Amino acid sequence: MSAFQKVTSSDLQFFADLMPGRVYWGDAISTDYDHDEMTEYGHFMPEAVLQTLSTEEVSRVLAYCNEHHIPVTPRGSGTGLCGGCVAIHGGIVLSTEKMKNVLEVDTRNMTATVEPGVLLMEFPKYLEGTGLFYPPDPGEKTATMGGNAMTNAGGMRAVRYGVTRDYILGMEVVLADGTVMELGGKNVKNSSGYSLLDLMIGSEGTLAFLTRLTVKLLPEPKTNLSLLMPFDDLDACIGAVPQILGCGCDPTAVEFMEREVISCAEDYLGKKFPDTSANAYLLVRLDGASPEALQPSVDTLTTLALSLGAKDVLLADTDERKESIWNARGAFLEAIKGSTTTMDECDVVVPRDTIPAFLHRTVAIGQKANVRIRSFGHAGDGNLHIYVCRDHLNEEEWKRTIQSVMEDLYSASREMHGQVSGEHGIGHAKRAFLLESLGKRQVSLMQGIKHVFDPNGILNPGKIV
Amino acid sequence: MSAFQKVTSSDLQFFADLMPGRVYWGDAISTDYDHDEMTEYGHFMPEAVLQTLSTEEVSRVLAYCNEHHIPVTPRGSGTGLCGGCVAIHGGIVLSTEKMKNVLEVDTRNMTATVEPGVLLMEFPKYLEGTGLFYPPDPGEKTATMGGNAMTNAGGMRAVRYGVTRDYILGMEVVLADGTVMELGGKNVKNSSGYSLLDLMIGSEGTLAFLTRLTVKLLPEPKTNLSLLMPFDDLDACIGAVPQILGCGCDPTAVEFMEREVISCAEDYLGKKFPDTSANAYLLVRLDGASPEALQPSVDTLTTLALSLGAKDVLLADTDERKESIWNARGAFLEAIKGSTTTMDECDVVVPRDTIPAFLHRTVAIGQKANVRIRSFGHAGDGNLHIYVCRDHLNEEEWKRTIQSVMEDLYSASREMHGQVSGEHGIGHAKRAFLLESLGKRQVSLMQGIKHVFDPNGILNPGKIV
Repeated sequence: MSAFQKVTSSDLQFFADLMPGRVYWGDAISTDYDHDEMTEYGHFMPEAVLQTLSTEEVSRVLAYCNEHHIPVTPRGSGTGLCGGCVAIHGGIVLSTEKMKNVLEVDTRNMTATVEPGVLLMEFPKYLEGTGLFYPPDPGEKTATMGGNAMTNAGGMRAVRYGVTRDYILGMEVVLADGTVMELGGKNVKNSSGYSLLDLMIGSEGTLAFLTRLTVKLLPEPKTNLSLLMPFDDLDACIGAVPQILGCGCDPTAVEFMEREVISCAEDYLGKKFPDTSANAYLLVRLDGASPEALQPSVDTLTTLALSLGAKDVLLADTDERKESIWNARGAFLEAIKGSTTTMDECDVVVPRDTIPAFLHRTVAIGQKANVRIRSFGHAGDGNLHIYVCRDHLNEEEWKRTIQSVMEDLYSASREMHGQVSGEHGIGHAKRAFLLESLGKRQVSLMQGIKHVFDPNGILNPGKIV
Repeated sequence: MSAFQKVTSSDLQFFADLMPGRVYWGDAISTDYDHDEMTEYGHFMPEAVLQTLSTEEVSRVLAYCNEHHIPVTPRGSGTGLCGGCVAIHGGIVLSTEKMKNVLEVDTRNMTATVEPGVLLMEFPKYLEGTGLFYPPDPGEKTATMGGNAMTNAGGMRAVRYGVTRDYILGMEVVLADGTVMELGGKNVKNSSGYSLLDLMIGSEGTLAFLTRLTVKLLPEPKTNLSLLMPFDDLDACIGAVPQILGCGCDPTAVEFMEREVISCAEDYLGKKFPDTSANAYLLVRLDGASPEALQPSVDTLTTLALSLGAKDVLLADTDERKESIWNARGAFLEAIKGSTTTMDECDVVVPRDTIPAFLHRTVAIGQKANVRIRSFGHAGDGNLHIYVCRDHLNEEEWKRTIQSVMEDLYSASREMHGQVSGEHGIGHAKRAFLLESLGKRQVSLMQGIKHVFDPNGILNPGKIV
């Protein structure tokens, strides 16, 4: 790491000749590039920003930087939450924001091939009329598909459909030395050696630079509906999740939310939530061929929820009602952010049956530290988003508080055999917690793998391990 | 590799003291251990066979062998098809056949934790009464679950449920130096560093020794039925697959079979198949909550198949009818094996829409070489099992023929952007074809990874890369 070179004017000249009009340095770099969504984790201005258009450019830039020991930080649209796309060791940011082409939608193989800069929110329009959809559904729709792949993003529909990993069939990547490599393809199964494809997924651009992505599509369900289940008792609410998952109704999403967070979203959106009578809610989404086909599941889930302590079960089967609920759910992160000065977040995943215990620990940790903590999450897959709000604390109080609160939260997660991140990744912000969670031997294996792919350590240095 | 040591009498003494009564050498080793299901790939007698009962034993054996440079070949029940569990460099076979405990069935988290030697056919009885099932369904039911994990076994239900990889949540493995390591756990999602878990899956015991496995379970579908679709035209038959997959009926399995293979199975089983009027068949299985719930899908698929050239659609909704079809399907491998002197197999996976082209190439390759080729496969996921039958050929003719036929088959697969193995793995038998398919750079990355995990190369040497 210490051997990194500063970007010189001759380096800039090389980049500018290669990518005319798409290289920025000095004051020409927008301050957007010095952080991701979490300004909490600091500002790091890269020495240059390069907006690439092609694999060929990426290959030449990496070969050059590898030879000159210049750090390369890959970046999509900068919506991460762990500083993964921030150039903490300087060097260049190599941005995919202009690589936005959907190269192919193959309806016969039910695949699509895209450039990494395609936004999650833009992709569905390319699938219109095909009857197919891309199941992963991370909350941040302005994220790039490349960024989703490199963090193994999750999202609300993971309960039924799985996470981004489950939909990546192939990749074109560029190694640190500029070699272009194909991994996987359109094949839907594979037992041909070590899965380098799976190694890339979630590697946050530390092993190679992603230049093309082939994803699996599924037939789009013709209809969906949601059930909102208010509970007065938090434990009964979360405790109902295993039975909801096990009753054979195959829910698409099972989200958990508390009244305080809903109120926050109401204030933020200026819109009322359909029910605010209860302390805690489960929100269950079902996908299916028709409302009639879903009716048996609605009946089963309603009876089950009421028997497990729900006060009521509200059916949301109109667009208006569905939007009023899901828009609130979608606004939680921004709403909590808007309610405080700054905040820090924790994205642990724990075995589903330990969620109640984990939430109780969270409350106790917040009380002990005298800090406001808000949480919500994907109850169906044990992935919780915990937000610690700074509110009125001064710099010194906040630093002390957040350090001890995070240590307590990750320590509780470890006790429950959880992991540091369910879907946001590690970046540089969660690195210390990851190292502690994995232990020395796993870290050294990961470092060994990193060295095999990127011996000079130029790719996204300071991230993961 | 050249530095491997022979097993000495003092080594045997060490093993025998550690694992009394479970260490075999010399004539005491059953000849079963010198091959897997494919005797075609040669006989390699290990110097000793150790039947382990515990992680602790594995750890001590590996630490010892690592220090003494003794090759260790992990083995389950020896049902592989690529020689993956055969000790081609001598040393010891470390067998999991006695590690057969199901350690936990956790209905709340819908997981089970098993020792690696549990047989696929034995596992369902531990789930009785839980309403849960383990979706992966490889054809060979006497395989171990550990072997399935280490080859990323597929099976017929992969179309809907995915392959073994999709159901492995956690592993306990022992590294070459004896270090015991936990990977994953009961969490259903994870973005915490490189996925060492995914790296282990399909690694055929070359990176670490698997001692415990946590798998994901799903609610068991309450009913299933199958549709048998006879076609006179092979292209129409296979050509119907994309539309069957895309029509929203979510089939569990889509199998392809030709009349010749069915006849072979009829002879082998001494039982008639329900229909032998057509040249080619698709067999589609549907899982669901009730026969009524499946009726719309049956109607849709029937109409669709008839419109695409099926002569008829036979519904198999009784146990007797289902068995008569699926037992025949399950007997294909053994039936083909029984019909010839010896045979060799190829387990390519190609993009689904190239299956017709691949099958035509297979026929042409067989005609050119004047050899009988039989094939069937998982049409729903592009994974074909191609069997080249030796029949009357003498040793020299067979060697020459099989070499050129395999080269032609893998070359056709590469042209169609396929992979060497869809579900059987690489072992030593497919190694040369894998190396050619991956290219030098990917192979060297895999070798680099191997070196990180197993610097002395003692774990299953000669396999994969």
